[in-house]
Amino acid sequence: MFDFHYYTPTKVIFGRGAEGSVAALIREFGGSKVLVHYGGGSVVRTGLLKKTTDLLEAAGIPYVTLGGVVPNPRLSLVYEGIALCRKENVDFLLAVGGGSTIDSAKAIGYGAANEGDVWDFYDYKRKAAACLPIGVILTLAATGSEMSDSSVITREEGRIKRGYNSDLCRPKFAVMDPELTMTLPDYQTACGCADILMHTMERYFTNGGNMEITDALAEGLLRTVMRNAEILAEDPRNYDARAEVMWAGSLSHNGLTGCGSDGGDWMTHKLQHELGGLYDVAHGAGLTALWGSWARYVYRNCLPRFKRFALHVMGVEPAGSEEEIALKGIEAMEDFFRRIHMPTNLRELGVNATEEDLMTMAHKCAVGVGGAKGSARLLREEDMLAIYRAAL
Amino acid sequence: MFDFHYYTPTKVIFGRGAEGSVAALIREFGGSKVLVHYGGGSVVRTGLLKKTTDLLEAAGIPYVTLGGVVPNPRLSLVYEGIALCRKENVDFLLAVGGGSTIDSAKAIGYGAANEGDVWDFYDYKRKAAACLPIGVILTLAATGSEMSDSSVITREEGRIKRGYNSDLCRPKFAVMDPELTMTLPDYQTACGCADILMHTMERYFTNGGNMEITDALAEGLLRTVMRNAEILAEDPRNYDARAEVMWAGSLSHNGLTGCGSDGGDWMTHKLQHELGGLYDVAHGAGLTALWGSWARYVYRNCLPRFKRFALHVMGVEPAGSEEEIALKGIEAMEDFFRRIHMPTNLRELGVNATEEDLMTMAHKCAVGVGGAKGSARLLREEDMLAIYRAAL
Repeated sequence: MFDFHYYTPTKVIFGRGAEGSVAALIREFGGSKVLVHYGGGSVVRTGLLKKTTDLLEAAGIPYVTLGGVVPNPRLSLVYEGIALCRKENVDFLLAVGGGSTIDSAKAIGYGAANEGDVWDFYDYKRKAAACLPIGVILTLAATGSEMSDSSVITREEGRIKRGYNSDLCRPKFAVMDPELTMTLPDYQTACGCADILMHTMERYFTNGGNMEITDALAEGLLRTVMRNAEILAEDPRNYDARAEVMWAGSLSHNGLTGCGSDGGDWMTHKLQHELGGLYDVAHGAGLTALWGSWARYVYRNCLPRFKRFALHVMGVEPAGSEEEIALKGIEAMEDFFRRIHMPTNLRELGVNATEEDLMTMAHKCAVGVGGAKGSARLLREEDMLAIYRAAL
Repeated sequence: MFDFHYYTPTKVIFGRGAEGSVAALIREFGGSKVLVHYGGGSVVRTGLLKKTTDLLEAAGIPYVTLGGVVPNPRLSLVYEGIALCRKENVDFLLAVGGGSTIDSAKAIGYGAANEGDVWDFYDYKRKAAACLPIGVILTLAATGSEMSDSSVITREEGRIKRGYNSDLCRPKFAVMDPELTMTLPDYQTACGCADILMHTMERYFTNGGNMEITDALAEGLLRTVMRNAEILAEDPRNYDARAEVMWAGSLSHNGLTGCGSDGGDWMTHKLQHELGGLYDVAHGAGLTALWGSWARYVYRNCLPRFKRFALHVMGVEPAGSEEEIALKGIEAMEDFFRRIHMPTNLRELGVNATEEDLMTMAHKCAVGVGGAKGSARLLREEDMLAIYRAAL
């Protein structure tokens, strides 16, 4: 087992009506002037935004609001949020939404608490020394940003998508009410499930470390999410399935499923980041569109893990060679993606990429990871290009 | 799934030599004057205490020390610690040891940060409003106190053992170096494994709530601990097995394996608390001596869970009636306890209790739980007595 750090300070309030405790939680964590950050129509339409600001007003907590977060959240809005925080002396950020909104709030938090250009952190130029405290009302089970140390921001100039990780941005609290996710379009629900699975799978497919308990937790989480994703594909208003998926989303990205490993592979995410930067596809769908091609490209270099995955997660029968079992596991996962109506290649994702596009993405991806990356198999630019091509 | 709160703010530094970061961690969490709290000979003998105080001295962090914690930690030493904290203006507690030392530190933390008698909290008379911050250097994988909200203290007068739970006492950090547990006597290692298993089993055997992901995590944890406990019975210096068990110990009692349930059963612990109060037996051994008798007394009232436990944890073949499968699971767990040399009744534990002793324990237990308690089956004083009798 490799040495590890584990730090998940986020206080989770989980269940029906959990959002009712938001004002008390902001007080508990020292907030006195709040920026309520959100995305587009849905939190307005469902009344959640109004309910939230009513709760703050009733508690006498002053606030300002900033909406307009979009998927693949934009740096320009982050700058706007930072300016607003400074102007209004905001000392607490409340993100009402999903991963994009939380990630945008994290970037605002870094920018407002540090001098200089916040993009420097995402561009690997320097490290943040602080972050404004953040609370979350979660409306989408997917990215795990509500407990994670990561945020991903897209700079419009050059369409560059970058992530920055630091414990400083881990939310102080996360309010999780599965009922808030009931009205999501089926496609977004499925995308969320795919993202959750991938957060654990990125950690699972490694060549490093003996980590029995982590593997047992990861495999249990993957099986649970797959089972409940299929339930939700048929019965989107199933509360228990919503709850299982929502809690799994947090556990999948708070660090738990990576303890004792070498840090994991993460190349499907890196490849999808470039896809998302160029095409604005849904993150979860971009991941499933690439995963099979990535898996077939790397599995021979990480055979024991792919075999274990096939047997323990996908329920493949232990017959045939290691390679055969591993491939059956990959096929079974792709079959599952199709059953929840997720794409397994770029065409199904609706992306018609030219060879030049693929080369651009591979180049940006290689630069983004500093040349080469990957634990299941170390990938260089030519490998990345080969995977993009295979995913067409 | 039942609503739940989840809060595990403890920063974990896990791996070889992790204790080297203790001074930086104390600074990070604001400690400026430290009480180093410990037990008896082993941390002195192994040099860990000296190493710890050397690290504090090198970092210029002033400290005082208080040793003498014993298993089933005593209220009198807690009072001594509180007085020492007040006299020396201690603002941070560093527990160097296992669960007893951490629990004692937690009680000192409550006492030093609140007015009045600290026993009031343990006697359910009032709630603590604060606790001094606590850090841990863990030397024993067992109680999970390094991340938990609980502490258990024994008052010598009347030999009353009571637990008090509050998020306030959750340690700020826990340094976990599996190598520090290498020199433990085999019996203590096995007792620790038993305690870890029981923390998850107490949460697992309930009649409340659908909780798929929690069940999957719990079952994976139980299987991992059992496998590695058997490895350690043969090969006590196996680092990876030590590491698996140590990390499982924290996850088993930080709340993770109870999310979404009704809170669990906990009656084996309650019954053992009275045993421990009266006889000073090792906690883990007391639990295994009672568990089988408890399980056979309650399983018919909680059949689906006992069946699931038999199939998913103990690997029982799914043949026969639900009752037969459930009983085979109980027998398989007792067989496992015997394989790691743990007792499965009071005689094997070395306790020769008279009927009067059993009645005293049952009465104290019933008073302690406020009359009746238990989710697998609600137990009253006569049920508790029946279980103690069956465990003779």
